[in-house]
Amino acid sequence: MDTDTIAAISTPTGEGAIAIVRLSGDDAVSRANELFQGKDLTTVDSHTMHYGKLLDPETGEIAEEVMASVMRAPKTFTREDIVEINCHGGLVSVNRVLEIVLAQGARLAEPGEFTKRAFLNGRIDLSQAEAVMDLIRAKTDRAMNVALKQMDGRLSGLIQNLRQKLLETLAQVEVNIDYPEYDDVEEMTNDIMQEKTAEVRDEIENLLQTAKQGKILREGLATAIIGRPNVGKSSLMNTLVHENKAIVTEVPGTTRDVIEEYVNVRGVPLRLVDTAGIRETEDIVERIGVERSRQVLTEADLILLVLNYGDELTEEDVKLFEAARDMNMIVLLNKTDLEQNIDIERVKELAGDNPVISTSLIQEEGIDQLENAISSTFFEGEIDSGDMTYVSNVRHVQLLKQSKQALEDAREGMEMGVPIDVVQIDVTRTWELLGEIVGDTVGESLIDELFSQFCLGK
Amino acid sequence: MDTDTIAAISTPTGEGAIAIVRLSGDDAVSRANELFQGKDLTTVDSHTMHYGKLLDPETGEIAEEVMASVMRAPKTFTREDIVEINCHGGLVSVNRVLEIVLAQGARLAEPGEFTKRAFLNGRIDLSQAEAVMDLIRAKTDRAMNVALKQMDGRLSGLIQNLRQKLLETLAQVEVNIDYPEYDDVEEMTNDIMQEKTAEVRDEIENLLQTAKQGKILREGLATAIIGRPNVGKSSLMNTLVHENKAIVTEVPGTTRDVIEEYVNVRGVPLRLVDTAGIRETEDIVERIGVERSRQVLTEADLILLVLNYGDELTEEDVKLFEAARDMNMIVLLNKTDLEQNIDIERVKELAGDNPVISTSLIQEEGIDQLENAISSTFFEGEIDSGDMTYVSNVRHVQLLKQSKQALEDAREGMEMGVPIDVVQIDVTRTWELLGEIVGDTVGESLIDELFSQFCLGK
Repeated sequence: MDTDTIAAISTPTGEGAIAIVRLSGDDAVSRANELFQGKDLTTVDSHTMHYGKLLDPETGEIAEEVMASVMRAPKTFTREDIVEINCHGGLVSVNRVLEIVLAQGARLAEPGEFTKRAFLNGRIDLSQAEAVMDLIRAKTDRAMNVALKQMDGRLSGLIQNLRQKLLETLAQVEVNIDYPEYDDVEEMTNDIMQEKTAEVRDEIENLLQTAKQGKILREGLATAIIGRPNVGKSSLMNTLVHENKAIVTEVPGTTRDVIEEYVNVRGVPLRLVDTAGIRETEDIVERIGVERSRQVLTEADLILLVLNYGDELTEEDVKLFEAARDMNMIVLLNKTDLEQNIDIERVKELAGDNPVISTSLIQEEGIDQLENAISSTFFEGEIDSGDMTYVSNVRHVQLLKQSKQALEDAREGMEMGVPIDVVQIDVTRTWELLGEIVGDTVGESLIDELFSQFCLGK
Repeated sequence: MDTDTIAAISTPTGEGAIAIVRLSGDDAVSRANELFQGKDLTTVDSHTMHYGKLLDPETGEIAEEVMASVMRAPKTFTREDIVEINCHGGLVSVNRVLEIVLAQGARLAEPGEFTKRAFLNGRIDLSQAEAVMDLIRAKTDRAMNVALKQMDGRLSGLIQNLRQKLLETLAQVEVNIDYPEYDDVEEMTNDIMQEKTAEVRDEIENLLQTAKQGKILREGLATAIIGRPNVGKSSLMNTLVHENKAIVTEVPGTTRDVIEEYVNVRGVPLRLVDTAGIRETEDIVERIGVERSRQVLTEADLILLVLNYGDELTEEDVKLFEAARDMNMIVLLNKTDLEQNIDIERVKELAGDNPVISTSLIQEEGIDQLENAISSTFFEGEIDSGDMTYVSNVRHVQLLKQSKQALEDAREGMEMGVPIDVVQIDVTRTWELLGEIVGDTVGESLIDELFSQFCLGK
């Protein structure tokens, strides 16, 4: 395993008071020390901070005023020696510090390489490592809590429990086969196997139940606001954005025009789709046509269909209902400040099981009910004890589904009377699949791929 | 003076591995300690780092995994107790940590308030404080060096020397007047005054000589690329951007479309004007019309006028020469790979004292010469020893100009034979003006205004 010294900028890019260049590896301290004018970093205590100047070895000149923090293995993030150089948070300043550190011989860290080392050195498992990135990218407090718990090892604990249970069952079966004490050993073994795999399958099923919500918490709920012109789509957007904390992020790797806007509604992160479109033309349907808007709708997790309380239902309204059929939808009867002209019974009929909320966005009425509806659509009646373990990662969900399938194969096999040693194969396979979640049974290339999705400096 | 505990996010905004929330003030340590699950921060040594959990006092739940650094007064940035809480560098994470710290009773720091406290507590003077912000905003290494030296107290030292000299002269004059030992005391006193004020005036003049370059280093050289369609303006832009480190910054407080692009040419930061325009339409003149482009030109510090070596001079070329008359200009004869059709003598005549460079941007020829020309236009023949003290701040320049004026008033007075105690008023005024640079003789409102221009968290 690599233990050479890696370095990267670990703070976000931009202008701020402080930026950090982090070094990790066998000779992190001695390398930093050669550049540092101040105390001898090789002799200072672990977890201490030292003011000094960073020298440019090429010119011998002072390149920056810094604070160097020395943390010695193994009580560090990577379990290697770490030096954090805190410098001024300007673009030139932090890049200069990084350049000097690299010129001195440290290697530029790959994305996620610090966390990868934490994983490879056994400080955290794979699901915890993945949680680190989820935590950084979290869009709401609730999403952060999910990540924090996963990072803390909650999910890992659950998974390892299941694996342990499977392992013990396999061992028990092995013992029974090798040393049959009773005549009915075969039946007994089958019973144990049936009971234990069913237990594990149920627990996996429970975890999978959290996946939908976990994914929403992690990635946000793609939400499309649709409706005829002038029904109040823009007002709805503004109400959601202003009533709640909005986080606007540019999507990396794309043109700067693609913006994702997140709105935090009672802990549910709504990712508002095509907000620029709505803002600019006031009308997504008008702008891109009904056909194209159907496409946008299929990518949404939630449709907010806005109708005008003061108007009769039109042909176009009905078309929008059709476009959103079979999707999660909340219908808004907006402008209750106007005289009612809409046929509410007909709307409810078209809405089916979906909630219908009356609002007057201009008079700020009905917003609570709307937010309740959004929240309860995705957290039905559930009291968020804050103590729930969510599966939020697509990779984990897939592995859990495969595990469940393998256990179902095992059950079917047992019911069909296939020999126990054939059933064992499926159970062993389950044990391996679950191991991939925590990274116990996972290949190097997958690990490389997973960490390459991390941000630089982590 | 305020010594309450202030807090702010001190790292740039965005997603990164690590973010820092900084606390400073009398009870920074005890406040942080109340939120911290880990070692007792109130008893740990100064300048040590401690792993732990940050608790949300409202819910009692773990809100984040953090590393808390304790630095005790007076050996800190503010000379107060400081706690830096390093958390995960996500938007939600760092904002949550800040919210908890504020909910616990710390006050949100005003922009620049940490540095202001460093100034008010006497750790740095005003010009050093201003250098901190310059350093963060520096666009090139050279600009950073200027700021670094100013922060180190170079400029302060020079200014304080001058003030000392004036003070000694004033004292000497006072002594001579009060205790005249010789008959020619009046003449002697006048001689001393003449000599010393002339010395100081010369040194101020020297400092002012560096101001133009200092300002360019600090703010960048507004550079406009002009020329007819298809002469190679776009290639020039791309060459400058790709050959050199480009820093693109959004201008805060404006729409997202305003982008400043900085290109570092041999340490001279070019701020490319209207790059979007050139990129999009390939032709700033065509796009906004000759009249309007004249306006753009007046705001530029440097014009790069591109001509086609393979074409004859046109009426439009001549108009561009006229538009750029009396400005710093470099003329490019581009496309030397084509057969010469341009009248070089005529171009040189139109260019006057401005350099004319032949290039073939496509074949990457002449770029060195161009960069030399850019660099030497602003650092004429000067060997950048790296040891120069530049005045880069507009406020400093104004105060130096006023100081110079006051000394000239004093000289004129002496020449006209006004009494020495009247001359003393001008000299005292100079001493005060210079004091404003380092913040010795400066009002509270000015200080508030200066620091309000800082970024948050610094």
